[in-house]
Amino acid sequence: MRLFRSESSDWTDKALPHTRSIAKTIGLIYLALSALCAIAYWLAGMSVFDAVNHAMTTIATGGFSTSDASFGKFDSVVIHWVAIVFMIAGALPFMTYYLGIRHGPLAVYRDEQVRTFLWIVVAICLAGTLLRVLAGDAVPGAVTAVTFNVVSVITTTGFSSTDYLQWGPFFVGLFFFLTFMGGCSGSTSGGVKIFRIQIAFRYLSVQIRRLIHPRGIFVVKLAGRRVDDDILSAFVAFAFAAGLTVIGVTMALAAMGLDLDTALSAAATALMNVGPGVGPIIGPAGNFASLPDAAKWVLTFAMLLGRLELLTVLVLFSPSYWRA
Amino acid sequence: MRLFRSESSDWTDKALPHTRSIAKTIGLIYLALSALCAIAYWLAGMSVFDAVNHAMTTIATGGFSTSDASFGKFDSVVIHWVAIVFMIAGALPFMTYYLGIRHGPLAVYRDEQVRTFLWIVVAICLAGTLLRVLAGDAVPGAVTAVTFNVVSVITTTGFSSTDYLQWGPFFVGLFFFLTFMGGCSGSTSGGVKIFRIQIAFRYLSVQIRRLIHPRGIFVVKLAGRRVDDDILSAFVAFAFAAGLTVIGVTMALAAMGLDLDTALSAAATALMNVGPGVGPIIGPAGNFASLPDAAKWVLTFAMLLGRLELLTVLVLFSPSYWRA
Repeated sequence: MRLFRSESSDWTDKALPHTRSIAKTIGLIYLALSALCAIAYWLAGMSVFDAVNHAMTTIATGGFSTSDASFGKFDSVVIHWVAIVFMIAGALPFMTYYLGIRHGPLAVYRDEQVRTFLWIVVAICLAGTLLRVLAGDAVPGAVTAVTFNVVSVITTTGFSSTDYLQWGPFFVGLFFFLTFMGGCSGSTSGGVKIFRIQIAFRYLSVQIRRLIHPRGIFVVKLAGRRVDDDILSAFVAFAFAAGLTVIGVTMALAAMGLDLDTALSAAATALMNVGPGVGPIIGPAGNFASLPDAAKWVLTFAMLLGRLELLTVLVLFSPSYWRA
Repeated sequence: MRLFRSESSDWTDKALPHTRSIAKTIGLIYLALSALCAIAYWLAGMSVFDAVNHAMTTIATGGFSTSDASFGKFDSVVIHWVAIVFMIAGALPFMTYYLGIRHGPLAVYRDEQVRTFLWIVVAICLAGTLLRVLAGDAVPGAVTAVTFNVVSVITTTGFSSTDYLQWGPFFVGLFFFLTFMGGCSGSTSGGVKIFRIQIAFRYLSVQIRRLIHPRGIFVVKLAGRRVDDDILSAFVAFAFAAGLTVIGVTMALAAMGLDLDTALSAAATALMNVGPGVGPIIGPAGNFASLPDAAKWVLTFAMLLGRLELLTVLVLFSPSYWRA
């Protein structure tokens, strides 16, 4: 009974040897990053209590804060940028830090997933900032506010520094879709994750080239390795299971009377382990307190499903598991 | 230059020989069904003009009506059921009619895609009717209203007989998700289509069995045939292209100021070639007239993309197409 076969979907793990010493090193890296983050928060002006608490939910991309206002409590650009840096640190594959220690910091950036992730973050933050500046915001404030909240949602941390839904319909849509994305596999973040988006993108690009050159031979590669049938098949299963779960949870919440925006974004934010949703009830300025108890149970299950990457849980509902 | 390779994603076509005589027979079946539909509408009480017009957009699963009220104009249960029957007829693979003529009507039902489609329709209509009856509607009225509108959206026809969004949040969610589904491949309907949902479902089920029996050999089959790499790869490319298009169109519409419900359901209903969306503006009781011109251009492009199944159009944006 290998319950953790879905781990094979974890791309970076496959490329490297698995040993206890690596697990130990990664544990130490996790502790070291959290400690660094706490010290940085403290130096930036947080109390020791706040610094330690927020550091633990920054590297973990958990997003729990000591205040209902989340990072809106801290009126400090430096604190926000410390959070941005360490949320991103928590969303990179921890294995690449191990490689970074062995082969120099550039090894982290040489990872294809890391590079793609960082460029996506930069592109979205630049576009968002531009739109805020065109809407009349000052550049420095817009850079910090957009970057903080975009990074928080992409990394599935879920902190917020302001009610970004007030920025207009474009940002409502943006934050809704970002809820699904997630950071890198092998990191602490949830979501669909960059390597799956890369796989899908490669298949789309190969398929288009096939239409143009019907006799061509095209191989889908990621990180220099061929994406084999196992990975593709696990990818399809994951994507379909995620889609079905979002639909199922949304319909369950809608049956309890929640509007479509709230139900759909609650399903997404729970399954992807982000935190805030979209709309006046569960947006960054709201919370889940007013939802009916039954909705909380459904969302609790969705959060567990998401954190365990779906298939390991769905196995438990298969009759043949109980016969095996 | 085989622009129509994406047709290989059309499952039922692969299973049968392609000849001019088959194309001709299918053309005749299409004409015969439209004629039958027109006669049935006329016998049920429509004027000749209305009967011919609505027949042409029923079998075509197009959904254009002579009235802004769509089928709300016709206060006749019989007319609504004639529409239901022929919308379903338009959403079945036309090749199976050919088989039905050669091997008897049961051959249509023996098609795996047809069977799955019909059972999904029956299950959703029963569940919807039950909820309407629990909400206080009389059974006969609820059966007709739920079945008509569910079938209209699933088959991507887009007629409406009433403002079903008034039935509460559950139905808003239901009709939103049904927008994506579509009928069978090889029919006149758009959407993701049943055979793609079947492929995804098989992969999910195989993946779960693989977790339980890691040494087992599992083959994904559809209609008795192995789903080969070409089909899976075309499937992933289609699904990703559809997802990206929905996201892109939604964000473009949101940037023009449309709210998330309207933008997202407009993107879906255009790409899937359905018709009505969700929300007060473009729901079944509204229309797209008030949307800005730019939004209409974006949605026009989305409708073309959807009707041509995405990849054939995306090829035109590939630099290597122009070099080929």
